[in-house]
Amino acid sequence: MAYDKQLPKKSDDISGWYNALVLQAELAEYGPAKGTMILRPYGYAIWELVQKKLDAAFKANDVENAYFPIFIPESLLQKEKNHLEGFSPELAIVTIGGGEVLQEKLVVRPTSETIMYASYSKWVKSWRDLPIMINQWNSAVRWEKRTYLFLRTTEFLWQEGHTAHATHNEALATRQWAMDTYAQLFHDSYSLPGYIGLKSATETFAGAKSTMTYETLMPGGKALQSATSHDLGQNFAEAFDIKFQDKEGKTELVWQTCWGLSTRSLGGLFMVHGDDKGLRLPPELAPIQAIILPIRATDELQAYINQTKKDLLDIGVRVKIDDRDGESLGFKINKWELKGVPIRIEIGEKERAEGKVKIVRRDTGESAMVDTNQLQKTISELLVKIQKNLFDQAEIALAEHTHTSGDYEDFKQQMSDSKGFIKANWCGDSHCEDTIKSETTATTRCKTDSTVEGNCIYCSKPHAAEWYFAQSY
Amino acid sequence: MAYDKQLPKKSDDISGWYNALVLQAELAEYGPAKGTMILRPYGYAIWELVQKKLDAAFKANDVENAYFPIFIPESLLQKEKNHLEGFSPELAIVTIGGGEVLQEKLVVRPTSETIMYASYSKWVKSWRDLPIMINQWNSAVRWEKRTYLFLRTTEFLWQEGHTAHATHNEALATRQWAMDTYAQLFHDSYSLPGYIGLKSATETFAGAKSTMTYETLMPGGKALQSATSHDLGQNFAEAFDIKFQDKEGKTELVWQTCWGLSTRSLGGLFMVHGDDKGLRLPPELAPIQAIILPIRATDELQAYINQTKKDLLDIGVRVKIDDRDGESLGFKINKWELKGVPIRIEIGEKERAEGKVKIVRRDTGESAMVDTNQLQKTISELLVKIQKNLFDQAEIALAEHTHTSGDYEDFKQQMSDSKGFIKANWCGDSHCEDTIKSETTATTRCKTDSTVEGNCIYCSKPHAAEWYFAQSY
Repeated sequence: MAYDKQLPKKSDDISGWYNALVLQAELAEYGPAKGTMILRPYGYAIWELVQKKLDAAFKANDVENAYFPIFIPESLLQKEKNHLEGFSPELAIVTIGGGEVLQEKLVVRPTSETIMYASYSKWVKSWRDLPIMINQWNSAVRWEKRTYLFLRTTEFLWQEGHTAHATHNEALATRQWAMDTYAQLFHDSYSLPGYIGLKSATETFAGAKSTMTYETLMPGGKALQSATSHDLGQNFAEAFDIKFQDKEGKTELVWQTCWGLSTRSLGGLFMVHGDDKGLRLPPELAPIQAIILPIRATDELQAYINQTKKDLLDIGVRVKIDDRDGESLGFKINKWELKGVPIRIEIGEKERAEGKVKIVRRDTGESAMVDTNQLQKTISELLVKIQKNLFDQAEIALAEHTHTSGDYEDFKQQMSDSKGFIKANWCGDSHCEDTIKSETTATTRCKTDSTVEGNCIYCSKPHAAEWYFAQSY
Repeated sequence: MAYDKQLPKKSDDISGWYNALVLQAELAEYGPAKGTMILRPYGYAIWELVQKKLDAAFKANDVENAYFPIFIPESLLQKEKNHLEGFSPELAIVTIGGGEVLQEKLVVRPTSETIMYASYSKWVKSWRDLPIMINQWNSAVRWEKRTYLFLRTTEFLWQEGHTAHATHNEALATRQWAMDTYAQLFHDSYSLPGYIGLKSATETFAGAKSTMTYETLMPGGKALQSATSHDLGQNFAEAFDIKFQDKEGKTELVWQTCWGLSTRSLGGLFMVHGDDKGLRLPPELAPIQAIILPIRATDELQAYINQTKKDLLDIGVRVKIDDRDGESLGFKINKWELKGVPIRIEIGEKERAEGKVKIVRRDTGESAMVDTNQLQKTISELLVKIQKNLFDQAEIALAEHTHTSGDYEDFKQQMSDSKGFIKANWCGDSHCEDTIKSETTATTRCKTDSTVEGNCIYCSKPHAAEWYFAQSY
């Protein structure tokens, strides 16, 4: 019974609060092997809602799912040099199989470019075989020294989309489509606004030509890279010899993209919307959207409660009755506030006598008595309102913590005081980027969409584009 | 382009036919690491249909999904002795992580009892916390020396359900429910009849009290264990200390079950229903239920074809148009026969002029001209008929290859000549079972539901129960 333990205050201790929240709300817990995480049913149900939405969007764009093995022979991973260098320090390696030391070591999938593209090179012969648009729902393993539930785990769940196209333009359009799909998911389901743009060379995915990212703001002022979409150019096509005959009969290399979103994004969801009482889930991603708490249920009252549940099920609301024995009403209220259920419905003899139910919003704490004949309308409208309110609150926080700076001393001061995003011009030189990082721990998060150039915040060189800087998870 | 290669004849060379079928129909191919398999989009789409059906049945019975880590510390696997002994020879082991030799080796999940039940012991305190009903969709790794696509691979996809209950009766009911759920799936979706019963001690899951199995018959006469459901008794509860306070305040161990179905079952599906032309997919598991082949499409014809597709989409049929350039009609017919699409629809100028379409059944080869205003009714009835016809054919084959034997010489002869299932009495002594196995390569598949006892086929001891024997994959 975790629900009677007090959470640390979010504003006092963001890390302590977050960790306690994830554990007490039964979203996840630490696995027995260092760095791993157990996704408990309540946390996994949220991931299933994400999967359902993304999978439908992928299929609507003719993306097909497939499954490639978890074991990648070391030699395959070595084919693209930058890719190998990027992932080498993080690998988990199988050296024993079936009681014998293996002749060739097997890497546990850190990402699937190499194993997938080895197949693509066999599958593609003609322009008629293109595009290839394949997605996988699986887990990936990247060794982590420090664990942070959801945000940094050695194994994480994700989807990875991998495409091959006849032209660079088509690949770029697909890279953009994937990011648009993520952006819509973050807006409509996560209620998480964010900044979208290209990464600097240093922050680009190992082996990619360029990386587009969705960056969200966490309370405490750090940024979270929440989804990425990459233009791979022809780097892997060359390494894996993925060629096709075009309509004129010429042999060409394909152009590729890949894009992914992981359970890491759920960490952002919990951290941004949660408060001192626990989670606040946006209705679109709430496994339970409305919880009914009976107050001293008699047989007569039970029928009334069942009818309420049925009315809500009928309009597609994910609703449950908590009739668990041996817990007080107060205990249950705390429990479901901790678990972030958007709407609580309390029903006792008083409510039944009046033909009403009491409803309480998790996001604002507001309550109201609602006539049962108005219930369906009220609840469906309220779910939309709560979804929007959470987005609006996060958008205000993002705006409040996004500043512009034209002076490096001011930049350093701001990054040390209030953190958040700072828009500043940067010349593109990795020396400036590195120095800013070592002096402020802030990195370039992505390019802004501004076309106005200025002087580099560090070296003052002119014609420098504008970038978002922030500290990050 | 695999479609122009001839398949070996199924009756001549069942293994060669099966392998060529899986590769040419683009269901799967070999992964680069020995023993692994790439599940291609067409094969994976079949698995997704299985997942959708099973997942709905699980959730309707209050089973929740979760995710437990792929890495299990060696020490955890050692907690239940029989379990460890059963799986030890098949393990893949990670010894290097993040560039360092690990202090404790990590086993790549061969099955999740140990890692899940370590958590169950923390989660269960009172009878109110029971039952726990959790399922995972993931992959498991068991080292294989020889690979057989779908049927025997080092890594396979599956679901594993793991429950904990207050009483043995409740656990047994859950074990039976899981098997009933599988049986219904095999009947209604796979069109695969089979025998259900308990396994002998030798064939019981490592660590279980008893195992229930669904055994299907493959062409060639071998049996395939297609799904299993286990009564774990209190073996793991004891090893992992999973205790609860019952209503009287007494501390008791929980009773457990686990049950699983894997991509192996798809191997059975392909093998049983396929013929010399390729796959024959039962409509319930066909990613494409009807394929439309245009014959020399003009603009006018295209509108007619699109309308046909729309009519079928409207009634929920999974339908596609194959308008790929550069392939003849004959080539396309071969391709979709190979891929086992239940219904082919050919539309040319002749059909349009008559207000008809030509439909061809994959299972029987029968064709008919159908009025467009009858199309929806005809296709939906036909899909049901094809589903039933495939089941009926498999049921006849199962009956034809199931014999009874009361004499060991006759048993040996039958097992060497015609294979298939033989019902025979067996005393339960593992010495008899082992000898029969070494002399005939047949093993006990499961107990029959007959209550009539007889003399053991091998040692002639009386009061021996009746068992199904067969050679197996």
